[in-house]
Amino acid sequence: MSIRGRAAIVGIGQTEFSRDSGRSEWQLAMEAILAALADAGIEARDVDGLVRYSYDNVTPAMVVRGLGMRDVRWFSDIPFGGTAQCGVIAQAAAAIHAGIARTVVVWRALNERSGVRYGRAERHIAADGEFVRAAGDRTPSGQFAGPYGLHVPGQSMALWAQRYAHEAGLDAERFAEVLGRIAVQQRWYANRNPRAMMHDRPLDMPTYLAGRMIAAPLRLYDYCLESDGAAALVLTGADTARALRDDPVQVLAAQQSLFPHSEPITVYAHDLMVHTGPGNTEKLFADAGVAVRDLSLAQFYDATSFMVLSDLETYGIAPPGQGWRHVLEQGTGLDARLPINTHGGHLSEGYIHGLNHITEAVRQLRGTASNQVRDAETVLLGCNGASGAILARA
Amino acid sequence: MSIRGRAAIVGIGQTEFSRDSGRSEWQLAMEAILAALADAGIEARDVDGLVRYSYDNVTPAMVVRGLGMRDVRWFSDIPFGGTAQCGVIAQAAAAIHAGIARTVVVWRALNERSGVRYGRAERHIAADGEFVRAAGDRTPSGQFAGPYGLHVPGQSMALWAQRYAHEAGLDAERFAEVLGRIAVQQRWYANRNPRAMMHDRPLDMPTYLAGRMIAAPLRLYDYCLESDGAAALVLTGADTARALRDDPVQVLAAQQSLFPHSEPITVYAHDLMVHTGPGNTEKLFADAGVAVRDLSLAQFYDATSFMVLSDLETYGIAPPGQGWRHVLEQGTGLDARLPINTHGGHLSEGYIHGLNHITEAVRQLRGTASNQVRDAETVLLGCNGASGAILARA
Repeated sequence: MSIRGRAAIVGIGQTEFSRDSGRSEWQLAMEAILAALADAGIEARDVDGLVRYSYDNVTPAMVVRGLGMRDVRWFSDIPFGGTAQCGVIAQAAAAIHAGIARTVVVWRALNERSGVRYGRAERHIAADGEFVRAAGDRTPSGQFAGPYGLHVPGQSMALWAQRYAHEAGLDAERFAEVLGRIAVQQRWYANRNPRAMMHDRPLDMPTYLAGRMIAAPLRLYDYCLESDGAAALVLTGADTARALRDDPVQVLAAQQSLFPHSEPITVYAHDLMVHTGPGNTEKLFADAGVAVRDLSLAQFYDATSFMVLSDLETYGIAPPGQGWRHVLEQGTGLDARLPINTHGGHLSEGYIHGLNHITEAVRQLRGTASNQVRDAETVLLGCNGASGAILARA
Repeated sequence: MSIRGRAAIVGIGQTEFSRDSGRSEWQLAMEAILAALADAGIEARDVDGLVRYSYDNVTPAMVVRGLGMRDVRWFSDIPFGGTAQCGVIAQAAAAIHAGIARTVVVWRALNERSGVRYGRAERHIAADGEFVRAAGDRTPSGQFAGPYGLHVPGQSMALWAQRYAHEAGLDAERFAEVLGRIAVQQRWYANRNPRAMMHDRPLDMPTYLAGRMIAAPLRLYDYCLESDGAAALVLTGADTARALRDDPVQVLAAQQSLFPHSEPITVYAHDLMVHTGPGNTEKLFADAGVAVRDLSLAQFYDATSFMVLSDLETYGIAPPGQGWRHVLEQGTGLDARLPINTHGGHLSEGYIHGLNHITEAVRQLRGTASNQVRDAETVLLGCNGASGAILARA
């Protein structure tokens, strides 16, 4: 049994991405969902499945109430944040494949810049003082990491990057050159993407290097933006998708993963580069029936620039320990073998918790991206191997 | 596409149900899951899917950490409480059908008597003073119901019952006779079920009637117990299930539902008896390929005795407005056409948020229940039409 080709993305929608939306997350979610439904040519009353990140403050009941749906037969939350980015695709496709829902909406809405900023520690302290990842999402390791000052993902990820540089034998100057190459390239993409928050803000290497150190070895420009905004997807069964439009984007495979003894981010295993279970990324490619050489581009969840480097190795695009060389030799631009984060990513388009990576993948496969990859046919979406999907032109 | 017969329940487990477990919910969850895995003959390391109620304080990360799993490829939360009771079956079966997970564990662990009692309002007030259903589960209507004193489900459900009695033309005495019949029968079952909290506590009709009024027309014995405890299920694909044991319980159909403009409990639609979308219960039976007459017994989510009465009509066992007559004429005992809540239910076995209704259904289909229904072949699980499943002997 497999979901390969059983479901397709037929609608995408979003709000503007900004530092202050001036309206509620509920409102943002409604706008993005209505835009995605209009893009798909589907009425809100015909939606019968809802899948969201558990971090979202907009609940299924609020969406049903807001959009006047008649009967939602599937609703699920995906625990954790970016590490579950592609879980929404897996669950939407599974709901459709199971015959429980026919039309599934996925959303992510957040006033993450004007409201509670994920990059600040207060988000992670519960009312009773306990360290948590998010409401209802207590993790066993947080209580051990917190007292050592590891309160937010950007701190923990700096340790990953330090370890990587040590094992690869890269000095600080060389490593900055690698990470800077990723950040500057993504800003280049953003400068050509009118949806990007950094559309009008160029970034060159000297400016990157002059950015203040936030948590060594990561500088200001290695970190994702903080954004207000929302994005949404609409998925249907493959047959319905073909009837609705001539450019549906089919789901070849999608995965979630919680690796051994783990929760995301704050667990430090013997190998800091390993964030997925044995054979998991291999299974993703096998389920999809494609190989790395078949990929047209990749969209990697970039809470920091380092995650792009890391995912090059996680997904087998570069050999273990050689991702930095891949970046220096090929880069991640439109002339690289594998363009990456062509919307600008979290670093330069906006931080919509990875859902904007998926909307960009859809645009690429439709041929409507601002930084269009020629003849884009297959896109890999990934986040540390803990979440991934492979989408293709139908 | 359908999940009919694609997945099966191969393991059930639970702790004792008590007023004070003396240990953490994490510990309770581990005990119940390990018992279910032992029952199935499966090692914890082979579990690759986790599905829970979003209300549970034990997160997927805590289960992975606690049991030493190697790689979990599916994890989902089901929003809402009892109204999502059978959503766990739907999602576990869909995960298996999708080929994403092969062995899925479901759990519910709660120190609901010794810890935060759901029947008290403090559970529903967030740190910022806003009315919520649970952590991360804010609902749009709570802010309107709360100021009128409707803080907990048992208050809202009393309004449903009042309305029902009014429309059915039942006076208070007659209505008490109907509800009392349900409560006394379930206690009878519990008295013969050594797992039941009320195993040693008989209940007769005079005692029922003498119970103090909590929220008219509902008396003390119309309400569910408050319990500490945990229960767990293990599901696999149908083929694996047959290899594991000779009495797997197959999932014929499972559903979730959020009815129009709705969240559970605090929404008052024009018809207070309608808690599901149009055609939803019909779809459940159609997906399963069975009719009401094929049912051996039913397990109805009973936050109050009234929900059993209500579900008789919701699921078409009695005609609209005639459920009370069905109860008076047939009852819900072993000699009725349809025995209901043969473990004693939430009223008398324990309140494990409906998961103990599912474990009892499995025992009945295995032929190992304390109050065994002869030749039990098909069980309906239901909660207001908002959540349902039909299970059968494989």
